[in-house]
Amino acid sequence: MTQATDFFDVIYSTRAIRRFKPDPVPQDLMRRVIEAATQAPSGGNTQPWRFLVVRDPAIKAKLGDAYLRGFSDYSGKSADQLRAETTESPNADLAVHFGEAPVVVVVCAEFRPSPGDSTGMVGQPSSLYPAVQNMLLTARALGLGGVLTTNHRFHEKDIKAALGIPDNVVIFTMVPMGYPRGRHGPKTRQPVEEVSFSDRWDGAPVF
Amino acid sequence: MTQATDFFDVIYSTRAIRRFKPDPVPQDLMRRVIEAATQAPSGGNTQPWRFLVVRDPAIKAKLGDAYLRGFSDYSGKSADQLRAETTESPNADLAVHFGEAPVVVVVCAEFRPSPGDSTGMVGQPSSLYPAVQNMLLTARALGLGGVLTTNHRFHEKDIKAALGIPDNVVIFTMVPMGYPRGRHGPKTRQPVEEVSFSDRWDGAPVF
Repeated sequence: MTQATDFFDVIYSTRAIRRFKPDPVPQDLMRRVIEAATQAPSGGNTQPWRFLVVRDPAIKAKLGDAYLRGFSDYSGKSADQLRAETTESPNADLAVHFGEAPVVVVVCAEFRPSPGDSTGMVGQPSSLYPAVQNMLLTARALGLGGVLTTNHRFHEKDIKAALGIPDNVVIFTMVPMGYPRGRHGPKTRQPVEEVSFSDRWDGAPVF
Repeated sequence: MTQATDFFDVIYSTRAIRRFKPDPVPQDLMRRVIEAATQAPSGGNTQPWRFLVVRDPAIKAKLGDAYLRGFSDYSGKSADQLRAETTESPNADLAVHFGEAPVVVVVCAEFRPSPGDSTGMVGQPSSLYPAVQNMLLTARALGLGGVLTTNHRFHEKDIKAALGIPDNVVIFTMVPMGYPRGRHGPKTRQPVEEVSFSDRWDGAPVF
């Protein structure tokens, strides 16, 4: 996997990486990934993030077990079905081998309700996910890869127990990372013309 | 404001910009900003985002009015107090002049509850805020600036009415953008050593 230094190269070539080489990820690269995360904005510059850098094989195995069960819940497929699909499905492959990723970064924060945010979808998430995106872009710039996952939500209690995370802390994502097996590169996206509107929800296309 | 092409320069120098020159923002730059947003990941690659590019002065004025009231609610300061603080406080300056930003990008998506996401904080926000971070980084790379705001949550009904946004759509942020008055540059952040832990919530520092 090559590195990249040009900003737009990184933006356009960062894609979800779900299969990893077994090679360990040097700690100095993880430091750069997480320092880049801390450069993201947060509401009132509160920087609520905490990054758990999980390398312990026994703890990763527990995360992997909970992730596989969560993906099974989400997909409606049994663990055995998923094991049979790892060759054709990167998602199934990740679900089966999650706990074997060289590093899993768990991004979490103490729960603090934001005034006026009746849904919970705005105030605190807006202070966490930009940092996660900085992590993923920086991983790609350094020749690493990872993927933003959210299946922890299905068996969060087991995951919190494995990580010693207290009840008042929210997990926003677990990002498995490592050197990619497979490539970064172009992605399938709707054209910008189809998702941009002038001035109003029912406005004319902008571009 | 200079442009930047080096990936790490962009990551480390992108900061919240709350004051703008009156100069219009060329549409081709907005196109690049929003296309970069669409390069972000989303759950199942659903790409739920819709970008409203608001330039109409009458609509921006309505957004600005609601934003000022929302910031007043949030800060506990009256509009007149905020008007008196615009010189020393970039937040007050933005609250008073929000509707005069050359462009306001409203990022929204149809509400879809994610299975297993009892809090609402994980499933859908994780598919929207990474795109917003790509927008902000790309703006900086192009010599523009902006800021991720969430005060729309206080008077969301008025904002939805001004934009013709239906009830089943969630606004995730309104990002005012333009050429910066003031600079990008270094930011105040906790050292990465203080926010990274090995293997567990109560783990040793990683770095």
